[in-house]
Amino acid sequence: MSGNSFGTLYCVTSFGESHGAAYGGVVDGCPPGLELKNEDLQKELDRRKPGSSRHVTQRRETDTVEILSGVYEGKTTGSAIGFLIRNEDQRPKDYAAIAEKFRPGHADYTYWQKYGIRDPRGGGRASARETVIRVAAGAIAKKWLHQRYGVVVRGYLSQLGPHPIVFKSWDDVGKNPFFSPDNSRTKELEQFMDALRESGDSCGARVDVIAEHVPVGWGEPVYGRLDADIAGAMMSINAVKGVEIGAGFASITQKGSEHGDEMTPQGFLSNNNGGVLGGISTGQDVRVSIALKPTSSIRVPRRTIDTQGKPATVQTTGRHDPCVGIRATPIAEGMLACVLMDHALRHRAQCADVVPPTKIG
Amino acid sequence: MSGNSFGTLYCVTSFGESHGAAYGGVVDGCPPGLELKNEDLQKELDRRKPGSSRHVTQRRETDTVEILSGVYEGKTTGSAIGFLIRNEDQRPKDYAAIAEKFRPGHADYTYWQKYGIRDPRGGGRASARETVIRVAAGAIAKKWLHQRYGVVVRGYLSQLGPHPIVFKSWDDVGKNPFFSPDNSRTKELEQFMDALRESGDSCGARVDVIAEHVPVGWGEPVYGRLDADIAGAMMSINAVKGVEIGAGFASITQKGSEHGDEMTPQGFLSNNNGGVLGGISTGQDVRVSIALKPTSSIRVPRRTIDTQGKPATVQTTGRHDPCVGIRATPIAEGMLACVLMDHALRHRAQCADVVPPTKIG
Amino acid sequence: MSGNSFGTLYCVTSFGESHGAAYGGVVDGCPPGLELKNEDLQKELDRRKPGSSRHVTQRRETDTVEILSGVYEGKTTGSAIGFLIRNEDQRPKDYAAIAEKFRPGHADYTYWQKYGIRDPRGGGRASARETVIRVAAGAIAKKWLHQRYGVVVRGYLSQLGPHPIVFKSWDDVGKNPFFSPDNSRTKELEQFMDALRESGDSCGARVDVIAEHVPVGWGEPVYGRLDADIAGAMMSINAVKGVEIGAGFASITQKGSEHGDEMTPQGFLSNNNGGVLGGISTGQDVRVSIALKPTSSIRVPRRTIDTQGKPATVQTTGRHDPCVGIRATPIAEGMLACVLMDHALRHRAQCADVVPPTKIG
Amino acid sequence: MSGNSFGTLYCVTSFGESHGAAYGGVVDGCPPGLELKNEDLQKELDRRKPGSSRHVTQRRETDTVEILSGVYEGKTTGSAIGFLIRNEDQRPKDYAAIAEKFRPGHADYTYWQKYGIRDPRGGGRASARETVIRVAAGAIAKKWLHQRYGVVVRGYLSQLGPHPIVFKSWDDVGKNPFFSPDNSRTKELEQFMDALRESGDSCGARVDVIAEHVPVGWGEPVYGRLDADIAGAMMSINAVKGVEIGAGFASITQKGSEHGDEMTPQGFLSNNNGGVLGGISTGQDVRVSIALKPTSSIRVPRRTIDTQGKPATVQTTGRHDPCVGIRATPIAEGMLACVLMDHALRHRAQCADVVPPTKIG
Repeated sequence: MSGNSFGTLYCVTSFGESHGAAYGGVVDGCPPGLELKNEDLQKELDRRKPGSSRHVTQRRETDTVEILSGVYEGKTTGSAIGFLIRNEDQRPKDYAAIAEKFRPGHADYTYWQKYGIRDPRGGGRASARETVIRVAAGAIAKKWLHQRYGVVVRGYLSQLGPHPIVFKSWDDVGKNPFFSPDNSRTKELEQFMDALRESGDSCGARVDVIAEHVPVGWGEPVYGRLDADIAGAMMSINAVKGVEIGAGFASITQKGSEHGDEMTPQGFLSNNNGGVLGGISTGQDVRVSIALKPTSSIRVPRRTIDTQGKPATVQTTGRHDPCVGIRATPIAEGMLACVLMDHALRHRAQCADVVPPTKIG
Repeated sequence: MSGNSFGTLYCVTSFGESHGAAYGGVVDGCPPGLELKNEDLQKELDRRKPGSSRHVTQRRETDTVEILSGVYEGKTTGSAIGFLIRNEDQRPKDYAAIAEKFRPGHADYTYWQKYGIRDPRGGGRASARETVIRVAAGAIAKKWLHQRYGVVVRGYLSQLGPHPIVFKSWDDVGKNPFFSPDNSRTKELEQFMDALRESGDSCGARVDVIAEHVPVGWGEPVYGRLDADIAGAMMSINAVKGVEIGAGFASITQKGSEHGDEMTPQGFLSNNNGGVLGGISTGQDVRVSIALKPTSSIRVPRRTIDTQGKPATVQTTGRHDPCVGIRATPIAEGMLACVLMDHALRHRAQCADVVPPTKIG
Repeated sequence: MSGNSFGTLYCVTSFGESHGAAYGGVVDGCPPGLELKNEDLQKELDRRKPGSSRHVTQRRETDTVEILSGVYEGKTTGSAIGFLIRNEDQRPKDYAAIAEKFRPGHADYTYWQKYGIRDPRGGGRASARETVIRVAAGAIAKKWLHQRYGVVVRGYLSQLGPHPIVFKSWDDVGKNPFFSPDNSRTKELEQFMDALRESGDSCGARVDVIAEHVPVGWGEPVYGRLDADIAGAMMSINAVKGVEIGAGFASITQKGSEHGDEMTPQGFLSNNNGGVLGGISTGQDVRVSIALKPTSSIRVPRRTIDTQGKPATVQTTGRHDPCVGIRATPIAEGMLACVLMDHALRHRAQCADVVPPTKIG
Repeated sequence: MSGNSFGTLYCVTSFGESHGAAYGGVVDGCPPGLELKNEDLQKELDRRKPGSSRHVTQRRETDTVEILSGVYEGKTTGSAIGFLIRNEDQRPKDYAAIAEKFRPGHADYTYWQKYGIRDPRGGGRASARETVIRVAAGAIAKKWLHQRYGVVVRGYLSQLGPHPIVFKSWDDVGKNPFFSPDNSRTKELEQFMDALRESGDSCGARVDVIAEHVPVGWGEPVYGRLDADIAGAMMSINAVKGVEIGAGFASITQKGSEHGDEMTPQGFLSNNNGGVLGGISTGQDVRVSIALKPTSSIRVPRRTIDTQGKPATVQTTGRHDPCVGIRATPIAEGMLACVLMDHALRHRAQCADVVPPTKIG
């Protein structure tokens, strides 16, 4: 399998460029009989849509999705589900100025070196706009996981630049432009973002994603571990530089007597492991945390080189998110849902006949 | 591909259990003509071998490896390289006491639930002893990467429990029992470990791995990114709970003007991205950092349940590493080498005809 | 990888149904820098297009293809190439009569049993119209193989029902409605087809495909053999029931002294092996022959059952090819080209550094 | 996945050379809880063992298999099943004479060209001795398929050189050295083989393999078809040059009204399709027929070239099967069983929740 597909049984394939004709995706392996319509995908796409507040890119895209196959009379047929999202607000000319220079922190230089050719319009294939496919594929996975197993996948912004945000309520997450779980912090975050935008700079973020009601037993030792596949999926999201499961890097300073989650007949007493032990889900919440780097396209002038290898200065004046992490929550949810669904299918392939011994909790 | 293989073109398959007859591995896809003998693998296996100091498990295994195929007259033939490491010091009886209980933090419970059956002897398939295969497969990858591209993959312990270790010298790494890059800290670390061992508890660790001289251009957008595959491979190592590339979680509080690595004709001016942009290597050092949780098998009594679902207390008295991170350096090196080699092959498959434009640095 | 993709490095993904909105394909892994435009795909699609003569289905489809991604300023970028072919002449009502019955020889029954749901409009996903994707993906492979290695992939109809057609000339193949390599036989074949059509019945066919100038060395022992992948690819074409490489079934009655192709410094003296030995190309022509069953959708009444399991009679009166083999030549060419391209890439991944010893011929 | 593995969920990996230390295999993805011991594999291996009659190679190998992992207390655990078969009767010196020449019809030349290096001892990796792995992996699949679904996979020799053998009885198959389904033909076949052996030549064969009681619904359209995977698996067996499913090449001259298998509430009225429609099993017998070429290693002198490209003559005097088809029956059974098992697992992954509508038959 080449680089534009992922998943073993719930397999997602993606194509498209930021300023090309369209983005498209193919979801292969979805069980038949799932009720599915454009709106199921659209609902999630709208959550990551650009232009939804002044804190994100002002590119005008409705991100309207059209399912082209795999659904008949409102239900999935088991065939490949193809879908298309036309680009509407292409402005390739915005990029003329930077076509000959490499933006620091961006993939311009590496694409050019790898392929000897590159599409400079908005980052081409490297644009974070590709994540529409992840969100759409994740929407299908979310729906199936919830209907079939009661799994709920949701996330929130847990840090915006220097501002950590303590979780307060799932209700709050949808009620501010940041996916912040604490509405009382909104004004503070807005002021921070306004100042940042004015400065022409950008910032990083942390997003937490949680899957509740995941049954015990999903994941394949030893290389196909659930946590390994989650880590790979998360790190494949544009701008992600770090992934943690459960206690993550905090595990380093824990003692074994502190980290190892004790069990009672009523269930686990803690969740340092983030719902995965030995690569297999424990039945607890699956907890993932990711670090997103600050946007590379900024107005602040930066030293770089041009395609002739000569020194140059670059300022990026197109329409960009000053913090890609703000819109990352639905993307990370989508990726987690896709990985979980893949493992749900893989698990029942091998272990459908296992009668699980008495569970705790 | 099922869970016991990884890699697209440099494909590693693993089998074996902690107290079974043997561990075995198959490396498929190695280019022909590489000089290879048992010693090449043994040298790396000896670095992770148990019993090498009082700070690691006292299980007595020589970890002697035998190459069974794929090499003819001292050179790889391009056929699958099969190799075997017989277990020598099996003591399944040590595990009789815990066969009916689930050790907190261990995969006992999840294997039992997933498969309805489990091999309780030393963790069975979940034992970290499986990493012999990763080290052996990595040894082949390291050798080829170095001969063909000059790549050097090496790592060190950068934190032991609460003790961060600042990098001082590669020379120091091989001269103490911890893969510590600062020999002047050895005594301090030994005292810490002695006290920890005495207490019957365990601790976590951080390991940094670096690949130098990686050419620009390795990695496949958008899901098959080099950093995504590295993250998946690292998170598949037993006990790993977090992975960072470059600045990692520190990116969250960075500004774009600080994070984005500027370029000059002489090269990049910093390496916050850890040698990967847009999923493709930049030509800089690839820098990875992992968090390892504290060992789950400890002498401290812990609350748990037994296979009947009844409350129980468990103490693990077998031979265990009080800090699995201590022996993790060669394992993480091996995984990084395997991923890099896979991408080296993938890159030249697609881009062998690309004449790379003038490089910097 | 699920069922709607094939190929390891040159990876083709397909979606769409016969009377849905569109067919779409994604080609992942194409090397960058290949000149590519819609016309390159269209040219091949026009060869398999319906309605091109009275001997094939009269469904009116222009099969107009639109490349949506992966090409920038006329050249492939190395990113996934997505393309779309909108269905134009859907007549789902044609199928109302057969929606409740299973056509003998068709996939109606198996889809219904496997998925518990099916799209009855023209066979849905099982329609041979899906082969547009194979032809389009094959067009890209053909172009690259020819430009990079001089490989020429072409085929012809070698038997139409009871009429074997001896190869006469490649020039003739494009000059009659049958891909027949002997124009002098055209009238005879037309009369046969006219009578067949009138009778409401259908017939089978044989198609031969040949790849010339394939370099020695493509193919991966032992399961990833070139001939194994060709056989799988060919058998995946709708209606194919048999595949031969080289002498094929005639090998059964050959002696070793007759079958084994002798070599001289000038080259091989025969090609019983069809250009593949030990799963690896020999440098000779790769020769493949396939058997296509007669079309299942016929006007002749046939015994069957309905969705209630009751006995029924079915006649299929929609627009169908009386011999699917007639349009199969470009499809089989496309599949052979895709497999060869996949192995070209795989070969150079592993063996790019091999300096091949002196070749014969 | 590289060339020495096959299968998506029931994944088989193989290593070893004809005169190396050992052959080894890894079966990944087997469901847990299957009773399995060495004897289950040995029983099938004994059926393909060399030296069992004067009509096959006289190499002395007990083909003793040792399961090394994945089984605990007599049951599969769900972990990878590794097994080893040590080579016992290596005679590499037998091959000194041919190390510098290429045997016509053999992989000597192609391996040498592909890899620039080759193991000439008995064909090295290209030896048909590799099929021990297929038989062993197939033995596990056969056992599981039978216990879980009642599937029976068995085959027979249906043609030996010019001698077609009409099926008479399954009982006969095990009672003669040829897997012939008609004991009354044994003497005739023995005389034919004695004369052939004396002449120093070899002959081809046809083998038929049938899987009974396969449930309806296995197989994945459109590229992952059951018949496509069977064709690929069969063509990957050494010496196979052709594969047919059901009526196979006879379909060419059939009419649609003859080929399409009619259905009644009692079941299908014929089986021209060989148990597969649209790539999905119908519930009928899966019927496969393969053509095996005559052995390439013969005593008859043949024209060839040496490694310097100079003309030469080669006679192969080692121990070889004069008809590789004779021992091919258990191999083809093994491959069919592996493919079926892979699809059984894949099917229930996607369609476990489908309540199949009323079946016929």
